[in-house]
Amino acid sequence: MKLLEDRIRKDGTIRGTEVLKVDRFLNHQMDIALINEIGKEFYRLFGDCGVNKILTIEASGIGIACITAQSFGVPVIFAKKNKTKNIAGDVYTSKVASFTHGKVYDIIVSKEFLGPDDRVLLIDDFLANGSALQGLINLVRDSGATLVGAGICVEKAFQPGGDLIRGMGVRVESLARVKCMDEATNTIEFCD
Amino acid sequence: MKLLEDRIRKDGTIRGTEVLKVDRFLNHQMDIALINEIGKEFYRLFGDCGVNKILTIEASGIGIACITAQSFGVPVIFAKKNKTKNIAGDVYTSKVASFTHGKVYDIIVSKEFLGPDDRVLLIDDFLANGSALQGLINLVRDSGATLVGAGICVEKAFQPGGDLIRGMGVRVESLARVKCMDEATNTIEFCD
Repeated sequence: MKLLEDRIRKDGTIRGTEVLKVDRFLNHQMDIALINEIGKEFYRLFGDCGVNKILTIEASGIGIACITAQSFGVPVIFAKKNKTKNIAGDVYTSKVASFTHGKVYDIIVSKEFLGPDDRVLLIDDFLANGSALQGLINLVRDSGATLVGAGICVEKAFQPGGDLIRGMGVRVESLARVKCMDEATNTIEFCD
Repeated sequence: MKLLEDRIRKDGTIRGTEVLKVDRFLNHQMDIALINEIGKEFYRLFGDCGVNKILTIEASGIGIACITAQSFGVPVIFAKKNKTKNIAGDVYTSKVASFTHGKVYDIIVSKEFLGPDDRVLLIDDFLANGSALQGLINLVRDSGATLVGAGICVEKAFQPGGDLIRGMGVRVESLARVKCMDEATNTIEFCD
């Protein structure tokens, strides 16, 4: 998606050769006009797949998922990172290793909201090592729902997550795939 | 807002006399059609206030803030709950005590995204003891921005947050104000 690639070139910040900050427009400050276009693009890609639920993970994925869900006309479920006293009863649970925070945490979804009749699209802002996406896939499979695919805004294609998840037979559509980047030369290259 | 009150009566779950679960439609599974109407209502209330930024706090507020921001045509900023290695540099910081999680945590907003030229609307799903809202207000004041007010979906009016924040001179608009509730009788009463 050229709009997103151009925005990453303009407002993204490269740290070293692995960290790409997009907090000016995607995951701290959010440019809603851009995210509207992202939502429409996910609908173009997955609109004919019979999606009836969008699943994401807190926190950065939620806004993108909600705006995308407007095109699909379906509810959003967001997996929670901790069991709080406001979520009682049966939950699906999975483990996620966070690259950003350097720790492992549990994610949960109430069993009330996912089941065998559901056709689920996953949405997230980033795909790097694939741990968050793997965790969401585990929740969907535990529920018996059908996994339609995953819509990702930015994939760091030089990290193993994309290959890992596609290798499992999951359709992954990433709107911007970073091939390589370098802070020293302030360059970023996208996959074709 | 009658639509939201009706939905709380229909799909909310009362626990004891203080806990109201709205995770079927607002903060775990999200009914996007309902949130579209919530966003329009916030715009009706604050649309003439010159808002140029919407500020919320992760995680439950983000989707509501993003959809509300579509009406205003402004970006969303969400305060983050932990300092991660992807946020370097100068940040505004404040402390929040979580009723749900029973602990105190830091929230941060990058100084790049808030400043004296901004007119900020706060959006959140719940107002109970007011700690999250107080934390966001502190961030806005530290930044020198103008605080326009706060749009809240559900206020538990029998807890002190609403009085506390309004007593500070902040305009708070809550779309559903719960006066009292009781699990034993499965009743909930809203303020007029």
